Amino acid sequence: MVQVNENYLKLKAGYLFPEIARRVKDFSSKNTNASLIKLGIGDVTEPLPMACCNAMKIAIEEMGTKEGFHGYGPEQGYIWLREKIAEFDYRKRGCDISAEEIFVSDGSKCDSSNILDILGEGNRIAVTDPVYPVYVDSNVMSGRTGPPDDSGCYEGLAYIPLTEENGFEAKIPTQKVDLIYLCFPNNPTGAVANRTQLSKWVSYAKENQALILFDAAYEAFIQDENLPHSIYEIDGAKECAIEFRSFSKNAGFTGTRCAFTVVPKSIEGVGANKEKIDLWSLWNRRQSTKFNGVNYVVQRGAEAVYSDAGKIEVKNLISFYMENASIIRSNLESAGYTVFGGRNAPYVWIKVPNQMDSWEFFDLLLESANIVGTPGSGFGLAGEGYFRLSAFNSRENVEKAMNRIVNL
Amino acid sequence: MVQVNENYLKLKAGYLFPEIARRVKDFSSKNTNASLIKLGIGDVTEPLPMACCNAMKIAIEEMGTKEGFHGYGPEQGYIWLREKIAEFDYRKRGCDISAEEIFVSDGSKCDSSNILDILGEGNRIAVTDPVYPVYVDSNVMSGRTGPPDDSGCYEGLAYIPLTEENGFEAKIPTQKVDLIYLCFPNNPTGAVANRTQLSKWVSYAKENQALILFDAAYEAFIQDENLPHSIYEIDGAKECAIEFRSFSKNAGFTGTRCAFTVVPKSIEGVGANKEKIDLWSLWNRRQSTKFNGVNYVVQRGAEAVYSDAGKIEVKNLISFYMENASIIRSNLESAGYTVFGGRNAPYVWIKVPNQMDSWEFFDLLLESANIVGTPGSGFGLAGEGYFRLSAFNSRENVEKAMNRIVNL
Repeated sequence: MVQVNENYLKLKAGYLFPEIARRVKDFSSKNTNASLIKLGIGDVTEPLPMACCNAMKIAIEEMGTKEGFHGYGPEQGYIWLREKIAEFDYRKRGCDISAEEIFVSDGSKCDSSNILDILGEGNRIAVTDPVYPVYVDSNVMSGRTGPPDDSGCYEGLAYIPLTEENGFEAKIPTQKVDLIYLCFPNNPTGAVANRTQLSKWVSYAKENQALILFDAAYEAFIQDENLPHSIYEIDGAKECAIEFRSFSKNAGFTGTRCAFTVVPKSIEGVGANKEKIDLWSLWNRRQSTKFNGVNYVVQRGAEAVYSDAGKIEVKNLISFYMENASIIRSNLESAGYTVFGGRNAPYVWIKVPNQMDSWEFFDLLLESANIVGTPGSGFGLAGEGYFRLSAFNSRENVEKAMNRIVNL
Repeated sequence: MVQVNENYLKLKAGYLFPEIARRVKDFSSKNTNASLIKLGIGDVTEPLPMACCNAMKIAIEEMGTKEGFHGYGPEQGYIWLREKIAEFDYRKRGCDISAEEIFVSDGSKCDSSNILDILGEGNRIAVTDPVYPVYVDSNVMSGRTGPPDDSGCYEGLAYIPLTEENGFEAKIPTQKVDLIYLCFPNNPTGAVANRTQLSKWVSYAKENQALILFDAAYEAFIQDENLPHSIYEIDGAKECAIEFRSFSKNAGFTGTRCAFTVVPKSIEGVGANKEKIDLWSLWNRRQSTKFNGVNYVVQRGAEAVYSDAGKIEVKNLISFYMENASIIRSNLESAGYTVFGGRNAPYVWIKVPNQMDSWEFFDLLLESANIVGTPGSGFGLAGEGYFRLSAFNSRENVEKAMNRIVNL
């Protein structure tokens, strides 16, 4: 008899985004005239940069010819793209990362969950609370946790609270951990980590031979010049951190699918007999065996992000969304809300007013202002009482939405 | 200390394709004037169909506009593509498969290894010998096997020989198994499975509540009208088989990346307490959590495969490669070789002459005819003494290669 992976049954049923979709559908069916504005899911709304479209069109022309046709590419990505990434995202910022250490993929969601493939089952794992649900769920599904308790926290995971009280800083936990998921600029709180904070983590990881999984999917939104964009801007990180990056949010590739993961050659884990094993080789083997590389056309599109025209377009996209964030912040503040984030991140983290809980505020915004956001409790226990609004929408919709909230 | 997944260390070091690449590189560096013809890796060479290119160009135009932009798509694929697949690949062949049971992905290599995510660790697993190495390696990497023995066979796997003596038929094994990987038309032998043979497997799977993982990546190459293209043409398969399909080999998508996996809603596995658990829900959860769907533009390209123009172009591509296969077969036969496959599959499986082993014949072809093929032993113990040539190349190269072999 074929047995299933029972760890899947531990997953909490009421998954965040399907539950939102259910409530929205229910509301819409009863209020067919309501004009909903969605500031929930972190999906971009502006067109793909012209530089990327043009590069992709040329690549498709090539694919239609005998000479220009591309079949299987390298599983790790084409070297011309990896070189560009190494140069512009790392060496220009003083990080000594080589093209070989960059693995191009179809998404950070995939990579940040697939990375568990190469790690042992005995690692003690830390996540922040609130947290991007994929880190937790991929650990649950692969049997790295016990069942959830009544509050929804999984046995065996260490939760690092990001709260108003601690300034949304991920503090080093008191218990020892081997694997730490950090996401800065943070989804969902919009908080950022400065050099001092990240340096503490790198020191901790080096002292404990722990591994940091650093999700920098939102680095392009950083406005403050003193903030690091990459964990590798911190000395020593090359020995203890893997970084996830994506073209989804900077160049609007959410529907185009291209991301990359940096696995420095200098990172080691240990085997059962405490022998050192380098992670680069394991990840390279994992990707070669279980992945077939990213579409050639898409990689040409991603390459165009680094062209002069592409850089300007990406900069304008970021400015556009960050102006949205600023409009959201200032309107909410003037309406008396306490808000966080939105200065170096496309997410605004709102303190829910009047002792409502996150889902009550969700229902209120949906029903009274026809706005869809994301209840903070969906990201974890410490998210209760908070609410996430995303800056990804048209200016018109953002202004309309803010008008509705202010007049609530 | 961060622990690694030590199962990776069980993998045999001399992986097939890197070893081929090493020998080719070595030869080329010493023989810079040699004009190599590659009939090794199963990668297509003809341009992408115009119908697909045109659809993709239109989709890129859309992506460059505010109205036509597509962000995150459904993780399962767009319903318009899934409907086309259900209609043309299944219902037209009498298979009752719904669009909801089709999961669009970026490759069969990914899906056929990722499927282990939803299956338990206690399953007894059968693979054929020779075999597509990904099935074996993904099991090794996820800890489903013991170490390899001296012959390279992994402890805990049941090997089903595909040999000249048994007509390359996958016979039901004597020991009980829970999970069976079948690939027909077969990579690497080019053998096919008829209805009677597949019916035996479906009966076996139903009786034993086993699961068949059916890889039909090469179904488009079937010329014989009596042969089934899908496992679902066999009664009862919807209760016991998952099927992998790809646009890589029919429409030349090896560098474009689009495939799909069929998980019927009627398939069940069991949990620890023998409770029934449906696999569709688990796979849906797996894909929603660990995958972000396929590029919108690529899905529009895949949809065009089902247009009238696309169908004609795909038919012509298949005819072209099958004529190559026929030229390879007839030349080799006239030169006295014993050959198999190449009639309903793009692979020709050659019996290595003169008591040479597979790698000796590889070196001979490389050095004396400047042809790169694939040693059968790379696919498993029963592949020793055989050699795979692929029909994926230009007519000119195939004819040139055959000339060289005939005059060897």
